[in-house]
Amino acid sequence: MQYKYPGCLITLEGGEGAGKSTQIAFLRDWLAARGITVICTREPGGSPGAEEIRSLLNYGELDKWDEITEAILINAARRDHVIRKIRPALIRGDWVVCDRFCDSTLVYQGAGSGIPIGVLRTLIDIAVEGIQPDLTLILYIDPVVALKRIESRESKKTRFERRDNAFHFRVANGFFDLAMAEPERCTLIDATKSPKKVAMEISSVVLNRLLIS
Amino acid sequence: MQYKYPGCLITLEGGEGAGKSTQIAFLRDWLAARGITVICTREPGGSPGAEEIRSLLNYGELDKWDEITEAILINAARRDHVIRKIRPALIRGDWVVCDRFCDSTLVYQGAGSGIPIGVLRTLIDIAVEGIQPDLTLILYIDPVVALKRIESRESKKTRFERRDNAFHFRVANGFFDLAMAEPERCTLIDATKSPKKVAMEISSVVLNRLLIS
Ligand SMILES: Nc1ncnc2c1ncn2[C@@H]1O[C@H](COP(=O)(O)OP(=O)(O)OP(=O)(O)O)[C@@H](O)[C@H]1O
Ligand SMILES: Nc1ncnc2c1ncn2[C@@H]1O[C@H](COP(=O)(O)OP(=O)(O)OP(=O)(O)O)[C@@H](O)[C@H]1O
Ligand SMILES: [Mg+2]
Ligand SMILES: [Mg+2]
Repeated sequence: MQYKYPGCLITLEGGEGAGKSTQIAFLRDWLAARGITVICTREPGGSPGAEEIRSLLNYGELDKWDEITEAILINAARRDHVIRKIRPALIRGDWVVCDRFCDSTLVYQGAGSGIPIGVLRTLIDIAVEGIQPDLTLILYIDPVVALKRIESRESKKTRFERRDNAFHFRVANGFFDLAMAEPERCTLIDATKSPKKVAMEISSVVLNRLLIS
Repeated sequence: MQYKYPGCLITLEGGEGAGKSTQIAFLRDWLAARGITVICTREPGGSPGAEEIRSLLNYGELDKWDEITEAILINAARRDHVIRKIRPALIRGDWVVCDRFCDSTLVYQGAGSGIPIGVLRTLIDIAVEGIQPDLTLILYIDPVVALKRIESRESKKTRFERRDNAFHFRVANGFFDLAMAEPERCTLIDATKSPKKVAMEISSVVLNRLLIS
């Protein structure tokens, strides 16, 4: 359903611990049960080169990269991911489900870190070569509740998870504003409900927006 | 002599093996003998973060990164280098001598790889925050002769050194055109002469352009 390619791109967005990874697993199975070939992927990362860049981004001191350097690196990773994995899949006619995409940049680096949106859009345009999500599911939840969910995780906290609460509230508001600004593409999903209820809500949105036309 | 800062930025440009590193060692000593505090650095790299990005860029398969991803990564490294090392030095009033800078991007990724100059300038503008070289020394030499100089090097060839001759000729022409286009900032240096003669030529240019005013 892409403008140029036969495949379809769905992105999941939301703060840390909102339930994106959990829901992608449900959505993959639900789509596969309908005979759709699904590629699940994530940003930053998703292709071998982009994963190398991801590891530069996620670990190290909080101020390892200045905010704009971080935005440039994220879009270098995005371009590799789009060129090497997402676009080839869309050309084949596969569906791609991506854990975070351009909206995370606009919200984390824009609303969160205060980089002018024009700079971010310029970088994103260079990265994505015209590819846009057909549907963006924004998992919405109080960031304090969401961060509690991942508090007990074994893995080392990423540089983003270690930001202060004010940052995470700016991110949550940023996602909300984005959903309001682009209602044709974005849907706000109440992520406080049980995983199964959230999954049902998501499959109903996908059914109505992408499968029944 | 920077517009905004008391320090001074000299960049050395030219193809692989033109003699940049050799000349930087001469120039550093020549400036130091005049009581100038000199910081020698290089691109891509020059700061800890940028050196991490450099290692992603220089090694791996020739087609590891698509050309535009490469240009984005180079400018992520450049921003880190400018913010963390070059700008602080210029603010202190030091002189910075840099082995490659923005012109290498315009010439390698533009003239060499064919990326539109507008895209490159956009990325460079985001990276450098208004910092420009006070003087750019372009070491000019037939690329075949220059590549012969480094043929016997012990170290593994970088992804750039392994490009074909046609690429290296486009790069050499690109540097020539740049010197013609920006004569106030750039000087073409005949790099075929002996190292000492090239060093004398460079010190005379620095004397006339930056020290006598
Ligand atoms: N609807 C839900 N209700 C309660 N807990 C949930 C819900 N969805 C996911 N979780 C739990 O919350 C934690 C975070 O979920 P998940 O990893 O899916 O979030 P995420 O958005 O992918 O996080 P991150 O941004 O860190 O990747 C997990 O432990 C998961 O089991
Ligand atoms: N003027 C010269 N004449 C002959 N040989 C030279 C001259 N200048 C440098 N060389 C030799 O050529 C080789 C390349 O020089 P150098 O490393 O300075 O070039 P470079 O421009 O820094 O190369 P690279 O782009 O690979 O960093 C060295 O072995 C050096 O000793
Ligand atoms: Mg996740
Ligand atoms: Mg060198």
